[in-house]
Amino acid sequence: MKFDSLLNELENEITQIRGYYPVETFYDPIHYVLGLKGKRIRPLLVVLSSMTLNGRKEDAFNVAAAVELLHNFTLVHDDIMDRDDTRRGKLTVHKKWNINTAILAGDGLMGFAFQKLLESPIGPIRKMAKRFTESMIIICEGQGLDKEFENKQIVPLDAYLDMIYRKTASLIELSCELGGLVAGGRARQVKLLRQFGLSLGMAFQIQDDLLDIMAEEETLGKNIGSDLLMHKQTILTILLSEKYKGPDIFKMELMEFKKALNDNGILQSVREIYLGHFIKAMDCLEQLPKNDGREGLKDLCKMIKNREK
Amino acid sequence: MKFDSLLNELENEITQIRGYYPVETFYDPIHYVLGLKGKRIRPLLVVLSSMTLNGRKEDAFNVAAAVELLHNFTLVHDDIMDRDDTRRGKLTVHKKWNINTAILAGDGLMGFAFQKLLESPIGPIRKMAKRFTESMIIICEGQGLDKEFENKQIVPLDAYLDMIYRKTASLIELSCELGGLVAGGRARQVKLLRQFGLSLGMAFQIQDDLLDIMAEEETLGKNIGSDLLMHKQTILTILLSEKYKGPDIFKMELMEFKKALNDNGILQSVREIYLGHFIKAMDCLEQLPKNDGREGLKDLCKMIKNREK
Repeated sequence: MKFDSLLNELENEITQIRGYYPVETFYDPIHYVLGLKGKRIRPLLVVLSSMTLNGRKEDAFNVAAAVELLHNFTLVHDDIMDRDDTRRGKLTVHKKWNINTAILAGDGLMGFAFQKLLESPIGPIRKMAKRFTESMIIICEGQGLDKEFENKQIVPLDAYLDMIYRKTASLIELSCELGGLVAGGRARQVKLLRQFGLSLGMAFQIQDDLLDIMAEEETLGKNIGSDLLMHKQTILTILLSEKYKGPDIFKMELMEFKKALNDNGILQSVREIYLGHFIKAMDCLEQLPKNDGREGLKDLCKMIKNREK
Repeated sequence: MKFDSLLNELENEITQIRGYYPVETFYDPIHYVLGLKGKRIRPLLVVLSSMTLNGRKEDAFNVAAAVELLHNFTLVHDDIMDRDDTRRGKLTVHKKWNINTAILAGDGLMGFAFQKLLESPIGPIRKMAKRFTESMIIICEGQGLDKEFENKQIVPLDAYLDMIYRKTASLIELSCELGGLVAGGRARQVKLLRQFGLSLGMAFQIQDDLLDIMAEEETLGKNIGSDLLMHKQTILTILLSEKYKGPDIFKMELMEFKKALNDNGILQSVREIYLGHFIKAMDCLEQLPKNDGREGLKDLCKMIKNREK
């Protein structure tokens, strides 16, 4: 695969965290989580964004690892809150160990995220750390909103889009922006990278909503239809509830839900919204310097578009 | 009280956190925790340490608030793990709301801690942020060790002292060190402040172990003997288990436990260890410039020594 060599280097950086004292119940789950690998989209975005603005890829590795550790912190804590038993086809930390262990492991991942960020050999460190912190808080806000929406029958589309911006897109936006900052890019170009990340992030989450009901269970690594089962509002339930006047959507079986989506043209609308964000992202790329970094970003976008999980 | 005016200013800084979007279930518990006040010993240490090295007190406010927010983050998550129902005489977050809300509120407090730190108007920001991050990880290690000790019948004294260094003393050490750094103090003087904080922190935790069984319930704000009940190893159980050859210490009633401590001279030994650390802390202060800051630190030490909770 195209990014194999870069991914190997990143894997090395991500898993090399520097603790101060051997505490099994703290470090075992942290290494377990990092060993689950995952797609590493965010660190790839950092490095490729940096290369787009002519940064040396090695100089972006610390920041790339930082973003991935931040992402993993949110996964561990979110899995507790969402009562998810599996992640990437393996048991979640709170299932394999217990909730206490998962809380602490998540906290640790957050700490190591900052550790990595502050080890960046270049870039405007205070600005980068401020944006990193801001995004971390915004992600917490997004998770809070997401949990609040579970108890609501009706969520306006705007509120939902705002939630997914916070919970998902903001970190992808941050990854691209930090890549630009670490490369010492000009404000206008860093802003373009940021806009690229934001649009890609929105597309990514909307695609996630689709995958949750359309993917193959074995490929997805978790149960199909888990959002519906968990009463999670997604763009699908929100658009459907605007059109559909039958009984409670969340009481539907998965097959019935899919049929209602089809009958009401929701799948079509959601795919259009998704593509709209995707095209915006590609437009931003066109305005950036044409080089290996930008080609890498384009390839990554294609891979994201074709993903099945 | 001596620090009333300074505490008011600090309170203002600590409670003024800057969010990005109104999310009730996220911000209500955060403001609740910060509203519980607490003794604010750590932010006082930051400001007074800074003043000792001739820093302007206002310049240390952001860092002081950062340290207190970091402390509150650990309290919220530790209370979940320790199943503590009350804190400072009020319900803990996970009792007043639920575990999910408390996990997220703790995460948020961590984010706002970094936000405050990065707003510091002066000081070597990367170094300060690195030490802040390092301490945050060390505190997690300490909490991990603490939980591990609960499942052990025998914990060596050295291991215990290492745990309380991590869980408690390291943050007090950090507070004093950051105060010195923000004041732009020389390495030797910052080191003295750090040593002062370390010794004071060790004294503080050993005193806490004593207070858990010796304090008045109403004054302490939580149940007396809760450590013993929770099978928490403290310096008391560790020293007692070295001397006492009777049945399981953790099966003792509180009265019985107190009698065994007295009969075996443990209370006396622990008070001596406590005083040893305390005297070391005061020795460090003697080597620092004689000014209002240092006098403030001495007064604060006296207050800590006389505390009943």
